[in-house]
Formats: sequence, structure tokens, C-alpha cells
Amino acid sequence: MVHPLDVFHRPASVAVVGASDDTEKIGGRPLRYMREFGYAGRVYPVNPRRDTVQGMQSYPSLTEVPTVPDIALIAVPGAAAVEAVATAARMGVKGAVVMSSGFTETGRPEGAALQAEMLAHARDAGLRIVGPNSQGLASFHSGAVLGFSTLFTEEPPADGPVAIISQSGALASVPYGILRRRGIGVRYAHGTGNDADVSAAELAAAALEDPELRLLMLYLESVNDPESLVRIGELSRRNDVPVVALVGGRSSSGSRAAASHTGALATERRVLDAFLERVGIWQVHSVRELVAATELYLQDWQPTGSNLAVVSNSGAVCVLAADAAEDAGLPLASLLPTTDARLKEVLPDFASTTNPVDVTAALLTDSGLFGKVLPVLGADPGVDACLLGIPVAGRGYDVERFARDAAEFAASGTPLVLAVPQPNVAAPFVDAGLPVFEEESSAVAALAQYLAHRRRMARADSLPRPALTAGPSGAPGRLNEAESLARLAEMGVPTVPREIVSFPEDVADAFTRLAVDRVVVKGSTDAVSHKSDLGLVELGCASAEEALAAAHRIAVAAALHGVVLDGFLVAPMLRGLHEVVIGASIDPVFGPVVLVGAGGLYVEALPDTAVLLAPCTADEVHEAIQSLRIAPVLGGVRGAPPADVDAWVKAVVRASEAMAASETVVGFDANPVLLLEAGQGAVAVDAVVLATT
Amino acid sequence: MVHPLDVFHRPASVAVVGASDDTEKIGGRPLRYMREFGYAGRVYPVNPRRDTVQGMQSYPSLTEVPTVPDIALIAVPGAAAVEAVATAARMGVKGAVVMSSGFTETGRPEGAALQAEMLAHARDAGLRIVGPNSQGLASFHSGAVLGFSTLFTEEPPADGPVAIISQSGALASVPYGILRRRGIGVRYAHGTGNDADVSAAELAAAALEDPELRLLMLYLESVNDPESLVRIGELSRRNDVPVVALVGGRSSSGSRAAASHTGALATERRVLDAFLERVGIWQVHSVRELVAATELYLQDWQPTGSNLAVVSNSGAVCVLAADAAEDAGLPLASLLPTTDARLKEVLPDFASTTNPVDVTAALLTDSGLFGKVLPVLGADPGVDACLLGIPVAGRGYDVERFARDAAEFAASGTPLVLAVPQPNVAAPFVDAGLPVFEEESSAVAALAQYLAHRRRMARADSLPRPALTAGPSGAPGRLNEAESLARLAEMGVPTVPREIVSFPEDVADAFTRLAVDRVVVKGSTDAVSHKSDLGLVELGCASAEEALAAAHRIAVAAALHGVVLDGFLVAPMLRGLHEVVIGASIDPVFGPVVLVGAGGLYVEALPDTAVLLAPCTADEVHEAIQSLRIAPVLGGVRGAPPADVDAWVKAVVRASEAMAASETVVGFDANPVLLLEAGQGAVAVDAVVLATT
Repeated sequence: MVHPLDVFHRPASVAVVGASDDTEKIGGRPLRYMREFGYAGRVYPVNPRRDTVQGMQSYPSLTEVPTVPDIALIAVPGAAAVEAVATAARMGVKGAVVMSSGFTETGRPEGAALQAEMLAHARDAGLRIVGPNSQGLASFHSGAVLGFSTLFTEEPPADGPVAIISQSGALASVPYGILRRRGIGVRYAHGTGNDADVSAAELAAAALEDPELRLLMLYLESVNDPESLVRIGELSRRNDVPVVALVGGRSSSGSRAAASHTGALATERRVLDAFLERVGIWQVHSVRELVAATELYLQDWQPTGSNLAVVSNSGAVCVLAADAAEDAGLPLASLLPTTDARLKEVLPDFASTTNPVDVTAALLTDSGLFGKVLPVLGADPGVDACLLGIPVAGRGYDVERFARDAAEFAASGTPLVLAVPQPNVAAPFVDAGLPVFEEESSAVAALAQYLAHRRRMARADSLPRPALTAGPSGAPGRLNEAESLARLAEMGVPTVPREIVSFPEDVADAFTRLAVDRVVVKGSTDAVSHKSDLGLVELGCASAEEALAAAHRIAVAAALHGVVLDGFLVAPMLRGLHEVVIGASIDPVFGPVVLVGAGGLYVEALPDTAVLLAPCTADEVHEAIQSLRIAPVLGGVRGAPPADVDAWVKAVVRASEAMAASETVVGFDANPVLLLEAGQGAVAVDAVVLATT
Repeated sequence: MVHPLDVFHRPASVAVVGASDDTEKIGGRPLRYMREFGYAGRVYPVNPRRDTVQGMQSYPSLTEVPTVPDIALIAVPGAAAVEAVATAARMGVKGAVVMSSGFTETGRPEGAALQAEMLAHARDAGLRIVGPNSQGLASFHSGAVLGFSTLFTEEPPADGPVAIISQSGALASVPYGILRRRGIGVRYAHGTGNDADVSAAELAAAALEDPELRLLMLYLESVNDPESLVRIGELSRRNDVPVVALVGGRSSSGSRAAASHTGALATERRVLDAFLERVGIWQVHSVRELVAATELYLQDWQPTGSNLAVVSNSGAVCVLAADAAEDAGLPLASLLPTTDARLKEVLPDFASTTNPVDVTAALLTDSGLFGKVLPVLGADPGVDACLLGIPVAGRGYDVERFARDAAEFAASGTPLVLAVPQPNVAAPFVDAGLPVFEEESSAVAALAQYLAHRRRMARADSLPRPALTAGPSGAPGRLNEAESLARLAEMGVPTVPREIVSFPEDVADAFTRLAVDRVVVKGSTDAVSHKSDLGLVELGCASAEEALAAAHRIAVAAALHGVVLDGFLVAPMLRGLHEVVIGASIDPVFGPVVLVGAGGLYVEALPDTAVLLAPCTADEVHEAIQSLRIAPVLGGVRGAPPADVDAWVKAVVRASEAMAASETVVGFDANPVLLLEAGQGAVAVDAVVLATT
């Protein structure tokens, strides 16, 4: 399928408005690049002051080019750029790439106004705009370089399986340069700029339709197009093209810098994290990580597990690789006894046949050792991936043979990474197309990312599509506790049985109706959230009289604090094994999310929570709970019975589905939710719901 | 001062036992290296089968060389190596470097026996041995290459300010190669092997006496020489030579691999961590980190704080550098209003004058911008270090000028790191001796390490020397609770007031004597540690009768569980704001340590503790407490008063001093220690002490 935006990747013709004879100018570079990099379509320089530009016939205005170009590349400043877009729109040009700056990125109202005007011209006519303030798009399979990055001169392009799509020009150029210096071909290197119309994510979705693409790198600073990100995730999985994303502005200062630069994220960062995880996109935190695993992604492996086997001719590298594997969360594979026996056949007596496998300096007398050991490891069903570390191999070693043996092993399907610091030793491995790193920790980290990313992609197919709904419109209000618990129960969260009464004197009857040993009496109000801090909660009332007295004290406390009570809530005094929380809110970008975490007194001071997009699955909730600090005690420690985590999970899943569908609730906080013994449930005993009705 | 081991670095003469004519053999390479790398002392090849070796006169045996050599370098295998050591010892040779293998590293008893025999010969005569199983020592200021690393051929040496001292030959060669490829001179590259006599740490201490050394890298797998590590720390600080250490075997599998390889650490890993921190050595976790900050250490800066200013011509790099700074714990500097004003003078209107400073593409028209901006930032007292990021700078930029301006700024004393991915743009910065990284996260991480390490070194001078005492000899036993509390009180830890009685019927009188509202009654025994799990603790007895009844129930519970009670402990029922723990033990390598942490039910299941070497200072304990997860609540949250952290700290300091001096106590566990309100103290209410008497 050809994506509508593919016209930016393979235009039949390009007009360059503001074409320059100077091949170093912004209006000159694209002409030179298209000529040098083999663009086969028609190119129309537009420059009212010249008859020819760089040897090509020039046209005084866009309207005078002989055919309607597919793309107008715009290099004229400010108002002239707006005018050019208007003209292109009138002519029926399909796409414009606006390199000119002076728009919203200035942070000034006049810039924003110009951008809005430009956009209005384009929208009316169906013209799609990339930019403004764009470094431009570069497509090296077609030679359509609609941009001015200087790096294409310094690091000449080669078409290849990688796409780099970035909102920042610099962050398109930097990974492009790093990959090219590593000899990796890059098909797309796009710096989109202000994303006034076409977003970086939309262009990425278009690139993912390219059947020859193997890996897509994405740099974003503002995330305002979650639908396209969902689409990217779907295409990534369908077409088996992993997507690695770097989203700048994680830190508070980074986020401020991003706000001053292109426009900040309006979203809580960990909602973005949960979103990317849900759709199968791998998030990295630096340029280093963005490019680190590239060579792994370009292999033809279909990895399943993550158990690592390590082989080296150095004991120290074995030790450090094992340390690195633990850091990266890769378990060391336990080898079968038959594997051990086969290793003993090929290795000298003093070598280690447990994992890590230290072949020792015996390698010097038998250059075939790696070729013997690797297939033995690969045949062990417990081994999912291998690391081969060769810290030193000078003269006397048959390095070419090592590389041949390694390449043959990797071609058999088991992921293999190399840790080879010496460039001359690394060269034959690199030439064989293998992923080679300077040392073991980098190799292990890249392998761990690759394996985890493939697992995440495989899993994403079974996860629900994020709701992304904007939530109810209208101003939400806080419901009182009785209403909150009732609403929560409707949403599928089990709540404590309770009696709601209007006056203190009715509390004694409520006690009797509940027919339990002890009750809690609370003042019901929508005015405060930490009720117990104000004396509005009385625990452990053991008789109707005590309950009545408690209600009177609560009424006094409310009066002292000026809190309006709308009644009293009387509920059985339950004792759970653990206090936990369930929460929900609506993220301005990603829609409804739910939260699970530890409850209790320090829920705010010592937060221990995880966020999930709504709707979510039971598996996801279980995994989120396992990520909590409190997870180890939920199964029961020091003789305590296991808690009913399943009931908690069920309540969260139901709440997430209700949030995804709700037309009134904009958030809730159920705290504490008491976890009873396994099989006996989880019960929300206190809650605040925010809703529009 | 010349260190006694300096004979290994500048021997007047070297005999090579097992000298080979083949320059690729282990007995041949050192001869060739000493010739090629300018060793000026006398070299005596020893080979009974040849008259000349590599053109030099050869001697049939060590005894026949014309003078007693300073060093015997031994390349003959097994028993012959032992014989050579014995001969060298008899002759009065000062040092032997034994490259031969077949000793303890084989894991076989005959290897260990051979090594012991070799050692006995040497010790008797005062001969110091490096090795066996050593790749050898290389000293490039003297040309004394007493080793066979193949890497010296492939990466030719250059004398310089860095020492690499490693127990592993590979881990001497790998950093050597990486540094040499970065153009950094290396003076010492030692791979010590089995450390039967001279340890890697001892050699490191010798190297630190070298006045021209600027940085020392250490790789260890077994840490059995803490005295030398303390000495390294002292010399490092006295001579201002930072020491960066990589200690393999952090993970359980890495530790197993290290055990099979050279001998495992017998110590808990975080005790090692605390030790290295105490003595001012920086610990890294990979080869990547080991070499990452080298160029920073070789600068002439005297950094103080860690507030970072970021400058770039790319907004995205500003954003990513700010993110990286937060990851690395470097605060972004707040600029003074005068700094902002001065930046506004030099930068165009649309540039950002807050930190990070985005000079924008205006750099293209003013190549002096960095040279104007950096000094303004450096003059701001809030700025401690700078990062300059130049993601793209092709033709049209005066890169040479950027580098000159940056070098001038760095020379003025403010630490500066560069993030410059393009090799041709980076080149002039590298040539100017500046630390250049491929991207901002690597630059920030290296800077953070460098700054934190310098702070750690500055601070280490004021910290007490670790006791390193082995602790009492004799088999320790568990004291019962009464004895434990008494012993703890002697050590300076405040304990709960208590009455100790022998029989249940005395408990009522004890209640009366204590004259408090409520008491705790406990069965006293040295047989169990979790007494409450067995029903041996009764809380909240409000009368003499209740206390008596509780004592009877405890007696029954003890009988049911077969626990022998030696009496009853009656103590006031105290309520603290928080339950914490104080612990102590004696590490087999590093001696007495103390532990602080969160107390309560989940002290084992959800550990939240920190370890300190004894004796320790109040500052250290405060810092350790601040590192705990519970730290934020100790100051009081949700209306709770602040807890008496100072009293906790004081108790820990006293206990650490007592542990360092104790001749009987081998450990204790005070849990819980109740923290009362600030000013009211901290009180241990339960404790187990392990002691020899």
C-alpha cells in the first residue's frame, strides 16, 4: 500500500521556491543534493532574479513552472513563505516542505499568527505541509532530498534499511552521521520542525509502509499525535520493523528547555512510558542508546527467550559479562548436562565448561575452539543468545576463522553479540555483518534491549488499543464518600458494605443494621480529602452507643474545621492483610489511565505506584503489581497468608474498562483498598471520585 | 620517596629465564619489547640451549649471569619456574615476575602446592614475587617491559600519566589499547595474575608514588589486601592522583565465575562499595565506565560544586543534555540576573539566555558566539562546569575558532566537556586536549563521575581510617535479650528501661516497679530471633495482673515450641514515631561494619538499609540515612512531628566506635529502635548481640 504521504518520499517533481545558485545556501543545497544523489524526477528552481540556477532553467514564480509539481520546497523567509504556500495550495501542489523559520518556534505571537495563516491556506486546498522551521526530508532510495542538512556532504549517503524521523534537524543529522560512519545505510533522514500539519509520527507511519525498511528511529519533543503513534506501533508489528524512540524532555529542566524550544509535553512522563510500552515502541533515553543496538535489529533473528551464554578466551571478560548480564536483566543460561559433556569433549581440561565458558589461552593452539563451542551452546534449548568476548587476539590467532565461525553460528538463528576492543580484530566480524561492541557491558546492554524489544512487540499484539478518549467535557466536581463508593462499585471495584445516614442519632441504628462487631464512623463530605487528619473518622466503635458518641465527636470536629457534612457513613471495621490503592485519571494526551500502588499513611511521601493505559489486561496489571516495591510481601512473609492479588487485579481491569467508556468520571482515588486473604477479595474502604455529574 | 616495589618499575638489570629467540614466544617478547621500547638497564637472557638469544649473549643458568639482576623474569613452566625462583632467592635477586601458569588458577591441589613451594623459597630470602600466572608488568618510562602482552606490538606504547594495574592480563591490555587509540600515554600496564605475594593493590600503591602519574585504573577480582587499598586511598589523595576501580564479580554469577577464575570475594559487595567510598576510590561497573572520564582526570581543574551550564547551537541537544544532567545527578545551574543580562548582550533576540543556553543557528553568522557565551557563564558563581554541544557544524562554521575559544575557557579553570559527534569537527577540540564525547549523555555521565570523584577524594581526608580489625577470635554465641540490651547500652546505644525477672510470678512486681501505664512482657532466651512469631512477646499489659497472665501465656508458648526461657523481661510500652534498625557485623575482609535502616515487619522482605565501615562519623550516618527510602518521612509528613534522627545518628556512631574497639562483640541487631520526637531520643527496644563472652 502506498501511503498518502509517500509523495514526500518519491515525488514525481519538486519545485524549489527560493532556489539559490550557491550550493551552500539553504535554497541551493537541495538542488545540489538531488542532482548528486540521483533524484530522477523533475526539478524546478523558482527564483525571480535568475534565468538559471545551478545550470538548470529557473522560473520566476511557482505558477510558471511547466507542470504542477508534487512538492514545493520552500526556502524563502516569513511572509514570502506564507505566500508561496498559498500559491502552491491554489495550484494543487500535493505537499510543501517549509524550511523557513520565524514561526511558532520563536515563541512570539506574530510567528504563531504567520504559521496559522500558512496552515489555513494549505488546509483549505488539501495541501499537506511539513514544517515550517524544518531542516527538511531526505529519501535516499529516490534521491529526493527536500532539505539542507550539511551532513550529507560530510557523510555521503547510502540507501539502506534504517529510517530516522525527528522533530529536530540536529537529531536527524546526528544519528544519520553515526550510522553512516558505522557503514549502515539510511533510507530516510527527516527533520520535521514545527509539525504544524504533518507530524513526525505521521511521516514515520508512512515510512513504515516501505517494505525494505528494517528499523525506524524516532526523536520527538512534543507528543501531540497519539493516534499516529498507535498507528506506528501497529505498522511496526505488522511489518516487523522495530521502532526505537527518544523523547526529549524527561527531566523538569529538560522539559522546560523543550517547552521553550518546540512546545512541551502536556502529559505525565510515565503515562508516555506506559503508552510506548503498550504499543510496542522501545523508548531510549539518549542518543547513545538510540543507535546502540542498530546492528542487532538488522539481523534475521527471531529470538524467543533471553537466557545468555557467554564465551571468551579471558576469565575476566567472563566475569564482567556475567555482571553486565545481571545489570541488564539477562539471566545466564543453565546448561544441560549433555551440553557440559559436549563442551568437555572440545575444550581442554582446565577450561570452564559452565556458563560463562572460558576457553582460556588454549585458543592460541586451536583457532577452531569458538567454532566448536558456539554450536554446542546454540544446540542447548536453554540458550537463547550468546556473547563472544575476545579482549585480546594479536598475531598467532586466526581471527578470520573466528569471524567465519561466529558468522556461521549467527546465521543459524541464535542472536550473537561480540565484545572485541581491538579494531583490527573486530574488522572481520564487522565485515561479516555481526554486531560488534568495544566491550562486554555495551554488547550485553544492546542485546538486552533488542531481546526485550522483540518480546514487547510480540506481546503488544495481544494488548487492547489504548482508549485515547478525551474524557467527559464539562467541569468535574468531587463526589462525597458515599457517592464516590457507589460510583466506584458501579465501575466494578468492590466496596465496603455501608450505611449512609443523615444525622448523628441515626448512626446507632446503622450500627445495629450492619450487625458486625466493630464499625468505622465517618463524616461524609465532598470538601476534604484527608478526612482522618481533621478528626472526621472514628475507628473501632464496638457498640451502638460508641458509634453514636463517635458521630457526635465527628460533628464537633467538622464544625471546628468549618467542614460542611452531608451525613455519616457507617461501615464494618475490616482488617486487610495490606492496604493498597487504585486510582484513575485522564491524561490530556493519552486519555484514561489507571494506577496501582501501595496504600497506607505514606502513599504520597513514599510513593510506590505504577500507571497503566485504560483499558488494560489482567496480565498487565499483574506485571505492574510485580514491579511495585511491596510486591514481595503480597505472597505472605513471616507466616502471613498470601493476599488476594487476583481480586485487586480484577478490580483494576474493570475500573480501566469503565474509565475507557465513562462519559462522566474523570478520575478517582480509592485508598485504601484492603487486600484480604487469597480468595476473600479486595475491598475499597475509602474513595474520592471526580465526575462531571 | 622510592617505593620498595619500584624495583619492578625501574630495575637496573633483568634476567629472562626461559629466554627465546622467537620474538612471538612468551620468553621472547619481553626481550624484544625492552630493546624496542628503550630499556637502558642490562638484560641477561637465560637459556641453556643457546649461546645467543635475539643477538644478545645468553647464559646457561641464572647463577651464571655476570651480576645479580634486580629482576628475574620467569618464562619456564611449572617445576622449572619454582626452581628458578629458588635460585633467584638464593642469589639475592630483588624481584621475580613469574609468567608461567599451572598454579592456583588451575583450581587443582598440585597447582596450589607448587605455588606454595615457590612462595616459601622467596619469602625466606626476601624475594618479592609478582604472579605466578602473570601477563607481566610494563613500565614505559623506563622501558622495563617484564611481560608478554601482544598488544604492545599492535598499539605501540607512549609514556604518559596513566597507570593500569590489573589482576587480569586481558583487563590490563584492554584499557591500555583503548587509551592508546585515544592518543593517551600510559606509563604502567600491569597484569599481575595470581597475586601469591605482591598484590595488584601493592603495585598500585608503588605506582602512586610516581610524581608524574595523574590517574590510576585498577581491576580486581579478589580483594584480600584491604591495607594496601587504604594505602592507595591515602596516596591517591596526598599525591592528587584519582584512582578508578573496577571490581569484577558483582553479580552472583559473575562472582561464581570469578571464584572459578582467580578466587572469589569473601565479602558482602556493599561492604566493598562502602570501603571504596570511604577511602576515596571511585568504583565503576564496566570497562566502558573505567575509561570514560580519562580525559577529564588529565585536566588541571580543581572543581568544587556540580552545577552545570549547557550551551549548544541545537535546542534538542539542550533538551537532551538537561535530561542527561538529571539522570547523572548534576543540577542545572541557576544563572544570576546579571549573567542573563550579559548573555542577552551577546546573543540574538531569539536565542535562549536561560540555562541551557541555545545560541541557535546564529552561530553560522557569528563564529565567536561560544567564545562570548562561555566566559559569561564561567563568571557566574553558580556555574561549576559547562557542557558545549555541537551536533552539526559543517562548512561555513569556523570550527577551529570554536576549539580555540573552548580551550581558552577550559584553561581558565572551569571544567568543560564537549559533545561533538562529527569526527572532523571534534578533531580540533581533541587536539586542544579537551574531553570530547560523541553525544551529550556520555559527556554528562563522565563529567558527573569526575566531579563526584573529586568531591569524594576531598571528603575522604576528613573520614576516619577503617578499623579493618578481624574481630574477636573464638566462637561467638547469641546473648539473650536482657544481656543483649545490656551490652548494647554499654556500646552507647540507648535502650529501653527494663526489669529482668526469673519467674512469671515476679512479673507483677516488675510491673509495679516500672510505674508506667502499659508494659511489654517478653520471654528471655538466646534460642530464637523472631520471638513474636512464637508467642513469646505480649504487648500492652495495663496492670500487674495482665502482666502476670501474659507471663504465664508466654511460658506455655515457650513450652509448646520447646524453647528454653531463662527469665522474663518487662519494659514500658513505648510508642515511637518510626521503627528503625541499627546493626553491626564483622566483614571477613574489611572488618567491623554498622548498618542503618528501616525497621518494622518487613525489614527482611523489603530491605531498606545502608552499610558503613566502623568507625564512622555523624556526617556519614546522616548521609546514609538520607539515602534510605524512608528518609522523606523522618522529618514529619501529614502533620506528624519530626523524629529524633540526631539521636539515631549518635547511637550509630557510638556503636561503630565500640565495634571498632570491641574484643568480644562480633555483631548485633537492634530492631526495632524507636525514634521518638526530635529531642526525645531513640531507644532500642529489642536486640540480639553475638559475642564471644
